[in-house]
Amino acid sequence: MTQETFPAWADIASDLVNTAAGRSPADTIITGGIWVNVHTREVLPDHDIAITKGRIAFVGPDAGHCRGPETQIIEAKGRYMVPGLCDGHMHIESGMLTPAEFARAVMPHGTTSMFTDPHEIANVLGLNGVRMMHDEALMQPINIFTQMPSCAPSAPGMETTGFEISAEDVAEAMEWPGIIGLGEMMNFPGVSNADPQMLAEIAATQRAGKTVGGHYASPDLGPAFAAYVAGGPADDHEGTCEADAIMRMRQGMRSMIRLGSAWYDIETQITAITEKGLDPRNMILCTDDCHSGTLVNDGHMNRVVRHAIDCGCDPLIALQMATINTATHFGLERDIGSITPGRRADIILTSDLKTLPIETVIARGRIVAEDGQCLVDCPHYAWPDAARQTVNMARDLTGNDFTVEAPRGANAVTANVIGVVENQAPTRALQFELPVTDGRVQATGEVAQIALVERHRATGTVVNAFVSGFGYTGTMAMASTVAHDSHHMIVVGTDRDQMALAANHLRKAGGGITIFKDGVELASVELPIAGLMSDSPAQEVAAKTEEMMQAMRDCGCKLNNAYMQHSLLALVVIPELRISDLGLVDVRSFEFIDVIAS
Amino acid sequence: MTQETFPAWADIASDLVNTAAGRSPADTIITGGIWVNVHTREVLPDHDIAITKGRIAFVGPDAGHCRGPETQIIEAKGRYMVPGLCDGHMHIESGMLTPAEFARAVMPHGTTSMFTDPHEIANVLGLNGVRMMHDEALMQPINIFTQMPSCAPSAPGMETTGFEISAEDVAEAMEWPGIIGLGEMMNFPGVSNADPQMLAEIAATQRAGKTVGGHYASPDLGPAFAAYVAGGPADDHEGTCEADAIMRMRQGMRSMIRLGSAWYDIETQITAITEKGLDPRNMILCTDDCHSGTLVNDGHMNRVVRHAIDCGCDPLIALQMATINTATHFGLERDIGSITPGRRADIILTSDLKTLPIETVIARGRIVAEDGQCLVDCPHYAWPDAARQTVNMARDLTGNDFTVEAPRGANAVTANVIGVVENQAPTRALQFELPVTDGRVQATGEVAQIALVERHRATGTVVNAFVSGFGYTGTMAMASTVAHDSHHMIVVGTDRDQMALAANHLRKAGGGITIFKDGVELASVELPIAGLMSDSPAQEVAAKTEEMMQAMRDCGCKLNNAYMQHSLLALVVIPELRISDLGLVDVRSFEFIDVIAS
Repeated sequence: MTQETFPAWADIASDLVNTAAGRSPADTIITGGIWVNVHTREVLPDHDIAITKGRIAFVGPDAGHCRGPETQIIEAKGRYMVPGLCDGHMHIESGMLTPAEFARAVMPHGTTSMFTDPHEIANVLGLNGVRMMHDEALMQPINIFTQMPSCAPSAPGMETTGFEISAEDVAEAMEWPGIIGLGEMMNFPGVSNADPQMLAEIAATQRAGKTVGGHYASPDLGPAFAAYVAGGPADDHEGTCEADAIMRMRQGMRSMIRLGSAWYDIETQITAITEKGLDPRNMILCTDDCHSGTLVNDGHMNRVVRHAIDCGCDPLIALQMATINTATHFGLERDIGSITPGRRADIILTSDLKTLPIETVIARGRIVAEDGQCLVDCPHYAWPDAARQTVNMARDLTGNDFTVEAPRGANAVTANVIGVVENQAPTRALQFELPVTDGRVQATGEVAQIALVERHRATGTVVNAFVSGFGYTGTMAMASTVAHDSHHMIVVGTDRDQMALAANHLRKAGGGITIFKDGVELASVELPIAGLMSDSPAQEVAAKTEEMMQAMRDCGCKLNNAYMQHSLLALVVIPELRISDLGLVDVRSFEFIDVIAS
Repeated sequence: MTQETFPAWADIASDLVNTAAGRSPADTIITGGIWVNVHTREVLPDHDIAITKGRIAFVGPDAGHCRGPETQIIEAKGRYMVPGLCDGHMHIESGMLTPAEFARAVMPHGTTSMFTDPHEIANVLGLNGVRMMHDEALMQPINIFTQMPSCAPSAPGMETTGFEISAEDVAEAMEWPGIIGLGEMMNFPGVSNADPQMLAEIAATQRAGKTVGGHYASPDLGPAFAAYVAGGPADDHEGTCEADAIMRMRQGMRSMIRLGSAWYDIETQITAITEKGLDPRNMILCTDDCHSGTLVNDGHMNRVVRHAIDCGCDPLIALQMATINTATHFGLERDIGSITPGRRADIILTSDLKTLPIETVIARGRIVAEDGQCLVDCPHYAWPDAARQTVNMARDLTGNDFTVEAPRGANAVTANVIGVVENQAPTRALQFELPVTDGRVQATGEVAQIALVERHRATGTVVNAFVSGFGYTGTMAMASTVAHDSHHMIVVGTDRDQMALAANHLRKAGGGITIFKDGVELASVELPIAGLMSDSPAQEVAAKTEEMMQAMRDCGCKLNNAYMQHSLLALVVIPELRISDLGLVDVRSFEFIDVIAS
């Protein structure tokens, strides 16, 4: 198990010089391709690329002088030679895959560099969890740069995470070999209010010469935004409209525009380039969140670049947004992001720049994927027990643990209910009249029960409330240890006993997702790593996830992105109502409210 | 005397945030200007800029919320607000001025950042001399970033410098607060041949995360150039034609194009952008070398930007090439190079973007120049005796020290003569038939004597030879301790006694330039700091330099750039014939040759 970084240009400069001069042969030469030059924004036919020790030594019309008897020849046969694609900001955990399996899934799609913020595991396992992700990232045959998570908990005082991230943690992580900067600074009110911890995290990152990721999720572009910019974040991927993109670029940030499994923010923002004609150097493509099904069925950064082109972007500019723009942003323009001497030999061969079929993928000079198949090993980190046994509940639960007691003598109550809204992340704060039986408030009709089961410190806490919008019918329950951002366990059901069954199953399984109906498990996705990730291949996880979503539909749920809606119900930074281990949270006021309306 | 760097964004972030949010007033607000945005390449009328502690806190249509009773108001009155100009590569010593006096001279021209390679003083005083330049640079009210000189001596084995720069020196300097990277790597054959010292210097710079400056002064764009690129230099300013610029940018370098006092390399290269339409982000404007007369009479970076515009470049692109492109190249895009929050408040007010009159210059939030006048103090470093007494000659010289002895009995000899060529840096290797009198070879007609007087270690060495092309007549001599790159003393004259007078005068003066005729000094420029620089104002130095050049003309010299030709005669890296303390050098073969042809 190695945590070494790939050898730097400085480590092998003499080898590169000697190959370029023709004094010692290249390991590999790619012959006869069209050089896609993202520095000059040109395509240059009939070029060769010579590679030595995983880095590019020479690019020119004829690399014959770099060729020796042992040199491997890859014939481009007139295809385009494109720099490997970079994902400017993303969370590996969103695929419910470990870094190794995520890498294996995306390589065939031409992604050779990712800038990943392991924010989810930070909430479960703290700095140690980040280090494990970082270490597995460094073991992969492609480049996974880690952004140190900045905000765990996301909402201090509103939830209890497994661990917290401090400014000291951030400063420590800046010394690790694979840390590229600070992960998205989600506490934008904190920055705008000059919160000392947030500014200290940013300062530690800036002093280390690294890049501060932003996350300004508000339409307010007034002084609050200006104050956020003045705090130091260097990019933002939360823009949703053209004005957002333009404002960020004018203020000296880079505008990251995303196409994730559920994010569609490119079409509305890329017009800043395609119609308004602004300098495109400050726009970067990213995914933010991709589910395993998207990776298996639709692609990764190739899908994003194609989409940008479909939105009217010049293909070379779209490719710049996924290569050199990203590299420059993170201070890596002499390491990745272009096909030029000294850089890592991350190269895609494709026969068309617009549809971008990913035919051959070369990473660090090696063919890692061909025609959609990954051809190399993606080593697994030896995840310790501490990372595999993270569902810490004091005991098995019973139906009684999911009781919402009614005021003495009441026959019915008015309950505050989390209202799920189709195709939107924000929920609504609703009120429903609910009946009371045996002193317990009953979920009926479109209202189901929801519980937040504490699972980090075995406190035994179960917070009960109500949710509407899933459309569940019958006797069922669904539970998940993916429960943004604190990742306790969210259980939603129509029946208290089924809720207990589901929760206890996940306790035993060590985390994941399960759905029970009439005492029988309909589907499950095991996520043994931190209760967030599987170390199985993406295909398996995608298939199980599809079964799970089918089971949700079988229980009456008609929502798009139904599982995502489930897993976001504890995200106490997005309005209006959410649940946490500390109670029901009105995110509009950042106050706890009672389940039974007064 | 301080060597502190200007406070970083991280040091004052809470102040900036509080100003942007309207919670604490700005120190200064510039109202009602046209925001020249070099990120998006736009001009945006009716904007305000709020400044706190020397950095920009807010830019928007109305900074009224940042205003307090003590806030200083600068009315832009509809003028353009342009980021302060950056000189991407230059040598302060070329102005024959100290950093303080150079800064004072260029501020009124809108230059607020310079990337300067103190290569000349490194040859005279080594690492200590670089440190002194670096320290005075940090004391100035504008930003002077120091590039650690890479090549002293420039031509190892061909000359003896006062001190040498080692790879260990480079590594040490990378820790200094004002070092931004490695100065131009002039030993391009060394890099192409994988010379271990050159690669070690580059590696030390890369490992420190800093920028390696390039200098590839050859038209050969074949494998030798490819090997140089593979060695790691990140920019190059030695290109002279469009193909040079294009090749450098395609290969992932930044193409620096220069307009110095004697360099005119923009018009021939900017067509890569203006005609070929390449992405302009990788082109940077610089001066390389400016004499004090140019600074006084013509300008500095304002002159360069204007010239780029006159060559057909879009004014906003030309400004990007002197602001954000430069900042990005050196990893400083979040510190300088644009008018956006967090950056140093370096701002020019100008009423026209094409002619670029520099009306008001603000550096770090302070008005430093107005209508051509510098308004602030530029502190002087306390240069120690070691820096002020660098003309180390064993004794005064006599005319006999300038004797070229003829072979016994010869009446005439064929001499190898350095042939100065009008308007070109390369010399020609000529041969002349010269008479012999009293056993001494005599300079006659268009041939004068030249001597290299050792002045670093008091060895007493005087190397004598002949030069043609100056056109001197009468009984005269001219001497200079500016003698690139080793900066011994070059004496050129028609008369041995005058040569001794001139040399002895500079010994007494501690360095500079002098010209004698008939035993009388016609003109002199005192350069007491390292024999290279004056700490007098640019106007004085420029006036004395003009007198000196007039005196050269009075002695019969008709060359353009006559003094530059004189000072380059020991530059043993440029063909064909040069003189060094070790002898007459044939730079075509890097061999010493005899003055008397065999």
